[in-house]
Amino acid sequence: MAKIGVFDSGLGGLSVVRSILDETKGHSICYFGDTAHLPYGSKSVETIKRLSQQAFNFLILQGVDVIIVACNTVSSVALPYLNDIYKIPVIGVVESGVEAALFTNKNRIGIIGTHNTIKSGRYEELLLNKKPDIKILKKPCPLFVPLVEEGIVDGPIADMIIAKYLLDFTGKIDTLILACTHYPALKKTISKFLGNDIELVDASMKIVSYIEKYLKKDENKKKSEFYVTDRPENFSSLSKLFLDKSIKAEIVNIG
Amino acid sequence: MAKIGVFDSGLGGLSVVRSILDETKGHSICYFGDTAHLPYGSKSVETIKRLSQQAFNFLILQGVDVIIVACNTVSSVALPYLNDIYKIPVIGVVESGVEAALFTNKNRIGIIGTHNTIKSGRYEELLLNKKPDIKILKKPCPLFVPLVEEGIVDGPIADMIIAKYLLDFTGKIDTLILACTHYPALKKTISKFLGNDIELVDASMKIVSYIEKYLKKDENKKKSEFYVTDRPENFSSLSKLFLDKSIKAEIVNIG
Repeated sequence: MAKIGVFDSGLGGLSVVRSILDETKGHSICYFGDTAHLPYGSKSVETIKRLSQQAFNFLILQGVDVIIVACNTVSSVALPYLNDIYKIPVIGVVESGVEAALFTNKNRIGIIGTHNTIKSGRYEELLLNKKPDIKILKKPCPLFVPLVEEGIVDGPIADMIIAKYLLDFTGKIDTLILACTHYPALKKTISKFLGNDIELVDASMKIVSYIEKYLKKDENKKKSEFYVTDRPENFSSLSKLFLDKSIKAEIVNIG
Repeated sequence: MAKIGVFDSGLGGLSVVRSILDETKGHSICYFGDTAHLPYGSKSVETIKRLSQQAFNFLILQGVDVIIVACNTVSSVALPYLNDIYKIPVIGVVESGVEAALFTNKNRIGIIGTHNTIKSGRYEELLLNKKPDIKILKKPCPLFVPLVEEGIVDGPIADMIIAKYLLDFTGKIDTLILACTHYPALKKTISKFLGNDIELVDASMKIVSYIEKYLKKDENKKKSEFYVTDRPENFSSLSKLFLDKSIKAEIVNIG
């Protein structure tokens, strides 16, 4: 059994933890949520690279065998950089998001995410590499994260903000990539606006299928560990929501 | 002439810089905006104290004579702590906000700010100390900052979010303290909802009157300096908005 490192700017990456625990056979998790520095969505690429390096150094010191980058922003702007520096296998959500989107076998794909994720152009680069004839529309939706964090996932305010961002997409896409760990919480309300025939793709949905090949086969079961850089009390309540059990996270100061 | 340190989590403190430049006679500014770590509004008190100490150490090394804490969150949760550590005179926006609110001479005061500012109870503590018979209502409005940063300061979305947060205040207050540097951008739209007879108090409005007594009388004019921990390019465009001229900020990494 191996130790799987999961890195996110905050706690949204717990949805990935859930998939791992559901679908892999007893591997342990070492979660690192950089809650003291979130959100990453509007920071400079240089700062995101520096913070990601701190997170990687920390996870490697904990003895992880592979690192899953659950954060779309980091996956979009810093993955080739991190792959150049570290030998450890790294899996980002962008690759899995692209695969899941192409799996729908449709040709008009919308992408929504943070300013940094959209500006990076990483999703369309990988999509067009694999299928040059698709049409892509994209849009940053910076209010979606604070909206979800305020617990507003439906009702008139959510409807209006969704309409504001996604009006240009109506009738022009058949698949929408939700390229941020927070966005799946708005799935139902987005579907209500765009129509149920538009397929909504959770970028991290397929990530587990990428892990197996990287995992060492040994039988020493390790304990899962959860670390954050701020507000460990938030972790307990959110882990209940994501994982159906209240887990304690340890607070660490890494830089 | 003295060097006035101004500390904010981001760039909202530039409104304070404007008041200083308008109302004091040629003192120089040393601005520090912790843009790599913003927003402070939902971080833990311990993290805010640590980040504030880093900012203070930096400003003191630049030779400032006094530090104005333009950020309501820091002023609310960390000012007594910082005053215990440092000898340098420190002025927070809470004291000036309280003074401005009491100046309206009304008795039913509302306070809106970040989660941390509202939870700290600092405003009501100071208000009730000075005038025990006033009635206070308070509410955190965490969506206001991302709304202003998205440039949505009027229109149906702003109207609905304002109504959501401020409905409980209607008919119950006659003065509202805007206890966050971002909120004055929503002033007109808030007034439209609450009615023009409700006085809206910008917490940093009166801060300049606190400075003069702390300033050394010497004649060596110093140059103003502006530092941020991330995205210096944002500073130039926002300084144009706040100060009518495009100013370059230097990027520094302090911890």
